[in-house]
Amino acid sequence: MGMDYSSIADGILREDSFDLAHLGKCEAIMSLGNGYLGLRSASEEHYFGETRGLFVAGTFNKFDQNEVTELPNAADVTAMDIYLDGERFSLVEGNCESYERVLNIYTGELRRNILWTSPKGKKVLFRFSRIVSLKRLHVIAQKVEIVPEDCDVTVKIQSGIDGRMTNTGSQHFSEGDKRFYENRYIQSVQKTTQTEITFVSTSVHTLCLDGAQIPSEAEAYIERRKIYAGYEIPVRAGQTLRIDKYSNVLTSRDFDMAGFEADEIRDKSLSMCREEQSVGYEALAEESKEQWKKEVWDTAPIKITGNGPQAVLDQFSVHFAQYHMRLMVPAHDNRMNIGAKGLSGEGYKGHCFWDTEIFLLPYYIFTSPGIARKLEEYRYLSLPGAHAKAVHNGYQGAMFPWESAWLDDGEVTPEYMDVDIVTGLPMKVWSGFIEQHITSDVAFGTWQYAMITGDEDFMDQYGYELIMDTAIFWASRLEKDGTDGKYHINDVVGPDEYREHVNDNAFTNYMAHWNMKKAMEYYHLLKTEKPEIFRRLDAKLHLGHAYELWEDGVSHIYLPQPNEEKVIPQDDRYLSCRDIDLTKYKEQEHVGGITRDYNLEQINQIQVSKQADALVLFFLLENEFPIEVKKASWAYYEKRTLHDSSLSLSTHSVLASDMGEKKLAYDLFQQAAMIDLGPFMGSSDAGIHAASFGGVWECIVYGFGGVRMLDGKLRIQPSLPEEWEKLSYTIMWKGQKLAVEVSRETLVVENLTGRAPVELKIAGTDCVLKDEKMTVQSQHFE
Amino acid sequence: MGMDYSSIADGILREDSFDLAHLGKCEAIMSLGNGYLGLRSASEEHYFGETRGLFVAGTFNKFDQNEVTELPNAADVTAMDIYLDGERFSLVEGNCESYERVLNIYTGELRRNILWTSPKGKKVLFRFSRIVSLKRLHVIAQKVEIVPEDCDVTVKIQSGIDGRMTNTGSQHFSEGDKRFYENRYIQSVQKTTQTEITFVSTSVHTLCLDGAQIPSEAEAYIERRKIYAGYEIPVRAGQTLRIDKYSNVLTSRDFDMAGFEADEIRDKSLSMCREEQSVGYEALAEESKEQWKKEVWDTAPIKITGNGPQAVLDQFSVHFAQYHMRLMVPAHDNRMNIGAKGLSGEGYKGHCFWDTEIFLLPYYIFTSPGIARKLEEYRYLSLPGAHAKAVHNGYQGAMFPWESAWLDDGEVTPEYMDVDIVTGLPMKVWSGFIEQHITSDVAFGTWQYAMITGDEDFMDQYGYELIMDTAIFWASRLEKDGTDGKYHINDVVGPDEYREHVNDNAFTNYMAHWNMKKAMEYYHLLKTEKPEIFRRLDAKLHLGHAYELWEDGVSHIYLPQPNEEKVIPQDDRYLSCRDIDLTKYKEQEHVGGITRDYNLEQINQIQVSKQADALVLFFLLENEFPIEVKKASWAYYEKRTLHDSSLSLSTHSVLASDMGEKKLAYDLFQQAAMIDLGPFMGSSDAGIHAASFGGVWECIVYGFGGVRMLDGKLRIQPSLPEEWEKLSYTIMWKGQKLAVEVSRETLVVENLTGRAPVELKIAGTDCVLKDEKMTVQSQHFE
Repeated sequence: MGMDYSSIADGILREDSFDLAHLGKCEAIMSLGNGYLGLRSASEEHYFGETRGLFVAGTFNKFDQNEVTELPNAADVTAMDIYLDGERFSLVEGNCESYERVLNIYTGELRRNILWTSPKGKKVLFRFSRIVSLKRLHVIAQKVEIVPEDCDVTVKIQSGIDGRMTNTGSQHFSEGDKRFYENRYIQSVQKTTQTEITFVSTSVHTLCLDGAQIPSEAEAYIERRKIYAGYEIPVRAGQTLRIDKYSNVLTSRDFDMAGFEADEIRDKSLSMCREEQSVGYEALAEESKEQWKKEVWDTAPIKITGNGPQAVLDQFSVHFAQYHMRLMVPAHDNRMNIGAKGLSGEGYKGHCFWDTEIFLLPYYIFTSPGIARKLEEYRYLSLPGAHAKAVHNGYQGAMFPWESAWLDDGEVTPEYMDVDIVTGLPMKVWSGFIEQHITSDVAFGTWQYAMITGDEDFMDQYGYELIMDTAIFWASRLEKDGTDGKYHINDVVGPDEYREHVNDNAFTNYMAHWNMKKAMEYYHLLKTEKPEIFRRLDAKLHLGHAYELWEDGVSHIYLPQPNEEKVIPQDDRYLSCRDIDLTKYKEQEHVGGITRDYNLEQINQIQVSKQADALVLFFLLENEFPIEVKKASWAYYEKRTLHDSSLSLSTHSVLASDMGEKKLAYDLFQQAAMIDLGPFMGSSDAGIHAASFGGVWECIVYGFGGVRMLDGKLRIQPSLPEEWEKLSYTIMWKGQKLAVEVSRETLVVENLTGRAPVELKIAGTDCVLKDEKMTVQSQHFE
Repeated sequence: MGMDYSSIADGILREDSFDLAHLGKCEAIMSLGNGYLGLRSASEEHYFGETRGLFVAGTFNKFDQNEVTELPNAADVTAMDIYLDGERFSLVEGNCESYERVLNIYTGELRRNILWTSPKGKKVLFRFSRIVSLKRLHVIAQKVEIVPEDCDVTVKIQSGIDGRMTNTGSQHFSEGDKRFYENRYIQSVQKTTQTEITFVSTSVHTLCLDGAQIPSEAEAYIERRKIYAGYEIPVRAGQTLRIDKYSNVLTSRDFDMAGFEADEIRDKSLSMCREEQSVGYEALAEESKEQWKKEVWDTAPIKITGNGPQAVLDQFSVHFAQYHMRLMVPAHDNRMNIGAKGLSGEGYKGHCFWDTEIFLLPYYIFTSPGIARKLEEYRYLSLPGAHAKAVHNGYQGAMFPWESAWLDDGEVTPEYMDVDIVTGLPMKVWSGFIEQHITSDVAFGTWQYAMITGDEDFMDQYGYELIMDTAIFWASRLEKDGTDGKYHINDVVGPDEYREHVNDNAFTNYMAHWNMKKAMEYYHLLKTEKPEIFRRLDAKLHLGHAYELWEDGVSHIYLPQPNEEKVIPQDDRYLSCRDIDLTKYKEQEHVGGITRDYNLEQINQIQVSKQADALVLFFLLENEFPIEVKKASWAYYEKRTLHDSSLSLSTHSVLASDMGEKKLAYDLFQQAAMIDLGPFMGSSDAGIHAASFGGVWECIVYGFGGVRMLDGKLRIQPSLPEEWEKLSYTIMWKGQKLAVEVSRETLVVENLTGRAPVELKIAGTDCVLKDEKMTVQSQHFE
């Protein structure tokens, strides 16, 4: 795809040729952001097939009653139409003599360097740079330099704010006000149609010719949903015309804009724009770079050492994952969560899924616990939606939505998508109705956060309630009318979405069991140690009655047992379905090939999995299953799993590491790392695969690094790939920062904080670490 | 612009090179349609900057409360993505060895012939054809032929229905159902968001290889707002792959779908699609061509004979006008009217203006009176909106909206547009509030129709009431509190929109006077000759009281009188405003240049006109003004008129003909004819200039042909341009068809119908014509 990895050692991802076929992919994987704003890296000039996207976290809106709420695509502030003596600058015309687009993931800056000859033969150099500031959440800054090489050229620029953006055709904004201030500041005010969130965008340009500022009074244009300035500047051969564009976006959903009138937000946006302009591009870029260093690269360093370019790519891929995990996370606001595509595209409508707890949360817990806490606070704040969903379905407690958007939205999974290849009708999406394991996933995430951070305050305020309220749901969900004396959970979708309407999905049942057991455990703990909290929760949740139901549930719930081959049945029919030759689909270039040959009803009759299912269970509840069951089940399911979900590979890789299958673990990691970074799985167009980045980190720190929280305790049991010489990383454990270095010879763990002793199990041995470095020889863990 | 006029003698407008800069213009001026459907001629393959557009007459919808109602851009059925061995067919890549896009205005067929070499060097011939059937109002048919010249190629086609269309960002449709039937028929059902009009589109493909049909079971794709089929066909070098696409669009607004459920419309659309497919492209094209011949070319023939290519272009330009006047007119339905851009683009939102009565209606009255009647029935049916507007403004009677959409919408002029270059704020559009002359324009159109057709039934049912009801408005509108004993009409916009908030605009006052006088005349007529109708209208309109008011109004209304130079003042301040040097704007390449130097407030202080104002008055009420007043006023205003409206040139041309200014008349005609057809006034992108086509016909038949209805009588006083040898045309006069032939030597008039005698004044002489041919020597009229 013209992707060039030669500079990745410097953190630079480079596209070395322009190709209309790859617009979407590059827009997504090279996107910029800061957790508040997400900006797809569409170019200044327009191309057919581009998908410009600017998203503000949490600003959900619903187009109409037939659609679900989604993150609206805000007015574009980045486009610039550039004309050279009347010829439009566009790489599909004229001749592109040299081209590169580079994303520096360490600084968060995107650049393009292009030498272009126009159809009429004018040779002109273009340098584009832009940032979304990590320091100033509202700010987008761009710099464009234009150097005519061998001819004088009159450059015409048309640039402003374009509110014609839609989400694949759905328009979420009323047109709103458009205004010029001082013939210079361009402002657009729009409101979302249903949620009535005010968006204010302001932009301004600074123009310089060979370093000398030139007056930037603009010709003003207002069109429908569009406002822009026009400049016309004669540039002599060899001169450098520089155009800076400073923009910002504020919304009435912002914490600090709560209660403000639209006019106040306008004023704020305008004065912010003045300030941006006075700071200037270079200083804005520099302070943002410093923020990247402070927040990410110094906070969560990971270093991979190995021979040859593959290790460099491995190193880059985890940094790339960290880059995107910072872009996607609304670290500034606990009323928001992470969308399945982050803020990098319209895919999955900005909704959050189990992806947060199972694939992403571990990274934040182990590196930036403050962010992790906010993600789980979001779940607590969205309990009203979970209660509503339970009531709607005839259950009690907190039934979390499969897809979650704004706090009180409840379930927002679309009901239909895609076409059934047999009937020609759109297929019903069952996840919103019956993919119920999300509720225990949330409880599990909450518990994980508490165990790893030791954040008692969080548990007191939110955690106990979340775990008990979800357990109440499960107790009410159990079906007690079976003839075997067991309680069943029928008609669900487990993590493996190729199997709909299954009974007793192993993952669902075991996690429900875990959830209720954990609630019982906390019941006792609160009763004896935190009577105040017990009383508060009892008043809300009627804990005495709940406890009885949990106890009954835990002792009667049906937990699928291994068969004679020690394989845990994924559900009550899986093992008796027919086996087909899956080679074609295992070797597919694009995911989902099987759905073009069979409809879902047919797939349901085949022993085939879209993604890890029972195996996720082994990964989460590692201590609950004997190693031979894990090995047998692994062997059985791995060959039947098509990894048609981006969530699948990392789980398999971590488990392969756990079982000492180093080669396979590394292979699967490499595949996982290439989901967005590599040329395959061309499904990045609608946005990056957020969870897969968490998966990459998990492959490394959980899998190769061997880190795990097990029953509340830290375990480190590394399994370094043969291809690597050394792996070092840091983790936060109960407020202490530990540095871990794994090499072929040794495992070294150091407590960098050293405020308190840390108990951990290294290579099977319990130790305590305080302000010291501990070294273990490799024969003890390999 | 790569526009080639070499084949216009055959009715063929040809674009001979592909240029992204001209996408919009060609889409509009080469658009297809039938008055029900209007289809912009965007290509099968997509380009950045294209504006695909498909409009169904009368299906207005309002995006939200802040926008006005508009004609929504329906789901696109014409796009096809074509891949050759994976390379996307696109003229911005690879090499275009030969190219032409041709519109045949006689047959209504659009073709493209392209020889293209792909970036990887595959040379392939493409032939595209399409029609919108004039015979079957719902039907769009396309034919694509692909011939790889020197290599085998696997052709992949993705084609279906795309509901992501918006009106410049505003989405008018809920997503709706999408469905495949028999793996072949593609159907989309959408509803407009506010007016809840159901749109059903169905498409199907037929594939042939070297004439042999190949199975056309498709891969089915359903995406958001999009449904399409995929085909993959290996084609050997020299073979011809042919893909036909048959589509139709039906809506619940259609007369014959009234009261139908969505499911019934679906069934109807599906069975219609089957039928289209079975008829086949060639037969559909042939029957549509026959319909063009019958409805237009045989019905309203115009022939211009002259020396050299200019006469050929003149000939073509009037046929081109007739072509578009058939596309734009909803001849099938009296609940609709003509949009200012016809059905060829989003401009002016599909609203109708005074353009209908003053510029377009004469063509329909004189050639297809049945259509003309429907246009005025529309005004009658939209009286409820006119009454509401009057009440809202504190007046009585029928105050017609400046912009009109659906029958009961009333005023739909947007309140703001564009930016004030001084304040930076959007400018208020005053037309909807105070451009009030539309009300007498409607009355005038009604009267014209009745006089020229002699359609008594129309007058009995609608006409008298329209003229009286509008006269009641004027009587209530007059301001009687002046100190001069006269009644004034203050604070209006006349036809010249460069002057807002003027008092006693000559056009407005004289036309109001005419309107009331006409009502008084009909009062007497009805009272004596049609007492039944008099009683009916009296019950509704209280004619006795109304008559008193008319009488009072007519005798007191202030009618601006010529000044000493015999110039009629356009309004009470015009002649005292300052004069500036207008050369720059008179010679401008693009219209509206003055608005970039002055804001409207400033323009109001200058003696400058956007368009004809007082001159339109002379044109409409020809007999009311002495020739020397007309000549002096003409001389005064012509040099101050920038013709920044497409309505302006034709009026000036006709008046120039009337005054014997042959050279100027011909110059102005040529400019008028080039508004859409020529390279200038690059404002066709958002749609053709509907009224200007009426203007072209008026230049020829009214101006050069000398036809006029004056005080109810037909007058023919030709003024043949020096450049022409002969002009012949037909006109309908009170049910008789007259053929007129003007040459340098003679004027020949023949009554082709001959059912009744026709009274007319030729060259100053009253004659009566019945079933005969009359010849007048040129010295009598020149």
